[in-house]
Amino acid sequence: MIIELINTGSELMLGRVLNTHQQWLCRQFANLGYLVSRAVVVPDTAQAIESAVGEALGRADLLIVTGGLGPTSDDLTRELIAKLLGKSLHEDSAVLAHIATFFEQRKRRMPERTRVQALVPEGATVLHNPHGTAPGLALQVQPNPFRSGKPGWLVMLPGPPRELRPMFIESVVPLLRQVLPPPNLFVCRTLRVTGLGESLVEEKVAGPLAKLVQAGLELGYCARPGQVDVRLAARNADAPKLLAEAEAIVRARLGAHIYGEEEEEIEDVLIRRLTERRQTLAVAESCTGGCIAHRLTNVPGASQVLLAGFVTYSNQSKQKLLNVSPLILVEHGAVSQAVALQMAEGAREQTGADFALSITGIAGPTGGTVAKPVGTVFIGLAGPFPTIVEHNLNPFDRATFKNVTAQQALDLLRRTVLKAV
Amino acid sequence: MIIELINTGSELMLGRVLNTHQQWLCRQFANLGYLVSRAVVVPDTAQAIESAVGEALGRADLLIVTGGLGPTSDDLTRELIAKLLGKSLHEDSAVLAHIATFFEQRKRRMPERTRVQALVPEGATVLHNPHGTAPGLALQVQPNPFRSGKPGWLVMLPGPPRELRPMFIESVVPLLRQVLPPPNLFVCRTLRVTGLGESLVEEKVAGPLAKLVQAGLELGYCARPGQVDVRLAARNADAPKLLAEAEAIVRARLGAHIYGEEEEEIEDVLIRRLTERRQTLAVAESCTGGCIAHRLTNVPGASQVLLAGFVTYSNQSKQKLLNVSPLILVEHGAVSQAVALQMAEGAREQTGADFALSITGIAGPTGGTVAKPVGTVFIGLAGPFPTIVEHNLNPFDRATFKNVTAQQALDLLRRTVLKAV
Repeated sequence: MIIELINTGSELMLGRVLNTHQQWLCRQFANLGYLVSRAVVVPDTAQAIESAVGEALGRADLLIVTGGLGPTSDDLTRELIAKLLGKSLHEDSAVLAHIATFFEQRKRRMPERTRVQALVPEGATVLHNPHGTAPGLALQVQPNPFRSGKPGWLVMLPGPPRELRPMFIESVVPLLRQVLPPPNLFVCRTLRVTGLGESLVEEKVAGPLAKLVQAGLELGYCARPGQVDVRLAARNADAPKLLAEAEAIVRARLGAHIYGEEEEEIEDVLIRRLTERRQTLAVAESCTGGCIAHRLTNVPGASQVLLAGFVTYSNQSKQKLLNVSPLILVEHGAVSQAVALQMAEGAREQTGADFALSITGIAGPTGGTVAKPVGTVFIGLAGPFPTIVEHNLNPFDRATFKNVTAQQALDLLRRTVLKAV
Repeated sequence: MIIELINTGSELMLGRVLNTHQQWLCRQFANLGYLVSRAVVVPDTAQAIESAVGEALGRADLLIVTGGLGPTSDDLTRELIAKLLGKSLHEDSAVLAHIATFFEQRKRRMPERTRVQALVPEGATVLHNPHGTAPGLALQVQPNPFRSGKPGWLVMLPGPPRELRPMFIESVVPLLRQVLPPPNLFVCRTLRVTGLGESLVEEKVAGPLAKLVQAGLELGYCARPGQVDVRLAARNADAPKLLAEAEAIVRARLGAHIYGEEEEEIEDVLIRRLTERRQTLAVAESCTGGCIAHRLTNVPGASQVLLAGFVTYSNQSKQKLLNVSPLILVEHGAVSQAVALQMAEGAREQTGADFALSITGIAGPTGGTVAKPVGTVFIGLAGPFPTIVEHNLNPFDRATFKNVTAQQALDLLRRTVLKAV
């Protein structure tokens, strides 16, 4: 099956915006057992869109086109594709009502231009957009003049990721399963690992998995800051058995370094486990500046667990809000084992939480010394046990530093909670 | 001038890796006044690479192909392109010496397979790779069988970003200036807008800019949660004048809704302005859960401005940390104007900051009522003036809700700071 992807957007061609759709959609297809064979980006001009769509329709069983469904004058996709396929556009009253409601709910006047988003090409299926005004559109091109009559599917999706992503999952995936089911049995499983680098992960599992790879197991690694994904896949008759054996081997070799599965983040796992145990948490962040609280509160239900977060950048706030001793701050400096310990204990006392995490360190780009270079970090964990402090060096750019440090702190808590049966 | 880009790599098609080359190269070209007209991604298979390269050579004056120059069995680019153009490959002794030195310096044995990287197509220019073993290759395709004889340039670059990027700047840019100088003067400017939707922005500026568009102004909009970018560009002799006039019109029409330029985030602007004024800030977040503190602390130098952040999810923490009255909490509920007001004032008192922002609301997906649906939010701002509270409805998914609400809170502060001369 040939699947192609076209992302439209002049901002992409100017390099102003990172093309995250390409990765996200390719990944979704791969997880479903499909493979995208070509991904093209073109600017928002009629000629560029027309030629790219025409060429792709000449090859593809399924063509996804993103962007250009908005209300402004550079949104051309809907009209161009209708014209290219010789389809007329009609105003869909359900879509128009949805757009009107969307503006009403937000107490904003509906601009006249928005109405264009209710236009639907003849024969197209409307893909509902609960997160925006432009619906997606799916249509079967049959007969397909670009491909000697062989039919193909064309799906148009809106550009904003928060509209495109749920629409793909809720509307496109069910349609695909119905009209273009994956050609083979396909099973895929991702195990998410933290606390080990990519080469170490490979060193531990590649040898033991070699025989299964010969039998058809597809093995892949994907490293991200603070995390490695081990991807197991198979697409033959033995796939489920192959995958079960492979997973058992990986779990035996990596043990508690595996924190979750598929798309789970470490904060999802933590909030779930702490909710089950009816335990609560406080966080006291200096150099991570709210990143940990932000990640935890991305998880629905975090309010059952997270009692409070403190972002104590200044020494004064460490003293006032967390009872860190001024003497300790002077003697050891704000970035020290002693201050991390007092921050964690102070946050736990202030909130009465079961656990409290603390982070103090040097995010950079400036502020490092020979003894405490940029990237130095102390992570504290207070709980119903003697307070733990870990000392790490994360010499990355500021954003990566915050994220990796947050990951390490959340993992320290995860490993501790796991043990505390 | 037609410039196209082909990135090769099966890991890209599986969505395991984000295609950062695409953005980086497009941006480099745009900054030099060129425009990439198509960017294509294909897997590491002979057929996919051959057909994509052949098609692109039929259109492009310059084709950049990245990846596939390494020593492993899935590195096919060099051989395939030589074959496609009917060029023989010869071993380049200078490249071979560079590869040998590269391994010697690292005290590693040079694997026999690496030798393949010293192969150079007949007539190609070698682009030195100080950061790796595979050189880049540039060649003029003349006569060009794919384009009725019209010549084109083809440049192959290695896949790893830390090899590709310096090579592009040090070798490709000088070559470009020599063989394909940018045809026109090119100027580009982005103005970043908040507090207005995309259609409203267009409604305000499109009419007044219509004449300039006729004179060659390129006008584009890019909407993101809580933000719209207005992009102005021109590439004719009048470009600087055209852009200056266009910018003046957009600034006059959108006024204080324009918070910044080019890549600036609202938090960058705020930290810069507050640092200049030597003013300080505290934030008290309920439903945004640390998102505002996290965004502010992404900016280097935030420690001069942000005295403390409070993530007060629970009623108890609102009372204890921010002195919110238990009576008010019972009477008005945690999500209310009165509580937002007390949170902001409490945070300001607790920290002695010049300004304090507070946020209380319902992020969802659950917890909404008829009177206070999911998305309801109150944003408070305390300062040397009567405390302000804004009431908004942001009925989005949880992540977007947090981000849009954070944007509104930061913008409330920005507008207030702007006024407070």
